[in-house]
Amino acid sequence: MRIVRVAQGFGRVDGDVVRLFDAAPWLSGVETGATAPLSALLAPIAPSKVVAIGRNYAAHARELGHEVPSEPLIFLKAPSAIVGPDAAIELPPESARVEHEAELAVVIGKRCKNVPEARAHEVVFGYLPLNDVTARDLQRKDVQFTRAKSFDTFCPCGPYIETELDVRDVEVIARVDGVVKQHGRTRDMIFPIPTLIAYVSRMMTLEPGDIISTGTPEGVGPLVAGNVLETEVAGIVLRNPVRTCAGA
Amino acid sequence: MRIVRVAQGFGRVDGDVVRLFDAAPWLSGVETGATAPLSALLAPIAPSKVVAIGRNYAAHARELGHEVPSEPLIFLKAPSAIVGPDAAIELPPESARVEHEAELAVVIGKRCKNVPEARAHEVVFGYLPLNDVTARDLQRKDVQFTRAKSFDTFCPCGPYIETELDVRDVEVIARVDGVVKQHGRTRDMIFPIPTLIAYVSRMMTLEPGDIISTGTPEGVGPLVAGNVLETEVAGIVLRNPVRTCAGA
Repeated sequence: MRIVRVAQGFGRVDGDVVRLFDAAPWLSGVETGATAPLSALLAPIAPSKVVAIGRNYAAHARELGHEVPSEPLIFLKAPSAIVGPDAAIELPPESARVEHEAELAVVIGKRCKNVPEARAHEVVFGYLPLNDVTARDLQRKDVQFTRAKSFDTFCPCGPYIETELDVRDVEVIARVDGVVKQHGRTRDMIFPIPTLIAYVSRMMTLEPGDIISTGTPEGVGPLVAGNVLETEVAGIVLRNPVRTCAGA
Repeated sequence: MRIVRVAQGFGRVDGDVVRLFDAAPWLSGVETGATAPLSALLAPIAPSKVVAIGRNYAAHARELGHEVPSEPLIFLKAPSAIVGPDAAIELPPESARVEHEAELAVVIGKRCKNVPEARAHEVVFGYLPLNDVTARDLQRKDVQFTRAKSFDTFCPCGPYIETELDVRDVEVIARVDGVVKQHGRTRDMIFPIPTLIAYVSRMMTLEPGDIISTGTPEGVGPLVAGNVLETEVAGIVLRNPVRTCAGA
């Protein structure tokens, strides 16, 4: 099933229409019978938190000069940074170096805590492409990742959540103006998804709709105004233009 | 006005009853006419994000061995860490050193971005005590603050939001088993509240109900099972027992 969100709400894709739900499907939403055109898609997520994983591909950890971690490195992105497909990534005046980080994101389907790895699949609702856009200069300056990764528009995702997907070995690709910059495979994650779900849920209760973004492969690089960024995971393509922040 | 939350929802304190709203007051909730007893209080906040500030009192920055920062140091706490008055702070097995950090927290009243300092007061809904409970050993180990500060129960707050309060010079106190451990004054903040609101809102859209917690004064120290922690701001007292994590 492919889950999208339009102005009228969440729904599932059926040919060229959206069959609308009365609530997000991870909040027990059911089809209302109403439909909407499959256009003007919004971000198909509305999480209470976005947990992201740093340095989860060895080659990427090394390209930033870091050791491969012995346990997952977690951080949070502000939900206010989320935008959907075709929405602009806005370069803020505070940074001179904003970079793409293409990632596979996991949508949690049910409230959970202390999930064993072997049962992690039971709490997954689905998967989607997400870009963990990062102001690399601020990340280095601040040490804490928060500011660098939580500017408005720094969490593009979509266009849809795929609920039926074997993600153990799928491609994660970033293209800038059609040129491939990142091209990894999820089988190269240091900590696979069940390990991440078990690890994060040992400390935090995960709520339905929460996101765990699983880290980026090597090849991160800069975005400049006028670029078009494509984030592709398992053949699902998220496209976002890049522009200078409107307020700058 | 004093805003609380009970099982039936948000409301305002009127003598010994709660006058219930039909939604959170920062989401245009209005009184329904119904009342509830003023007891069994829940956390009076339900934010889309908790932005917290590190090292905002010079003496505290120094006690942890840090320089006084030249701009605010921000990080996020997971909303799933929030608990209310009298709820237990649970010590997780991952940490051998959990510490209290008494803070004044600001509740945002309206959606805003790029708020000038001079107009920051216009976006404030109210204030409440919050404790930025921190696993100090994990904070030092991880470098990123996220895990150390986002365990479930690591964000106690309440018991109520005070909407009428001049917070420019109020006391911020932590007591453990009745003994004063932290005793600061908000006038000693390095970055005052209007500066924090302006700074955070330059990068992130703030949503109604969002929290900015303004940093802790010196005197942070350990919590052990059996302690009772009191977090007092401007005479408002939040009380939380401390126990070993139930799942541990």
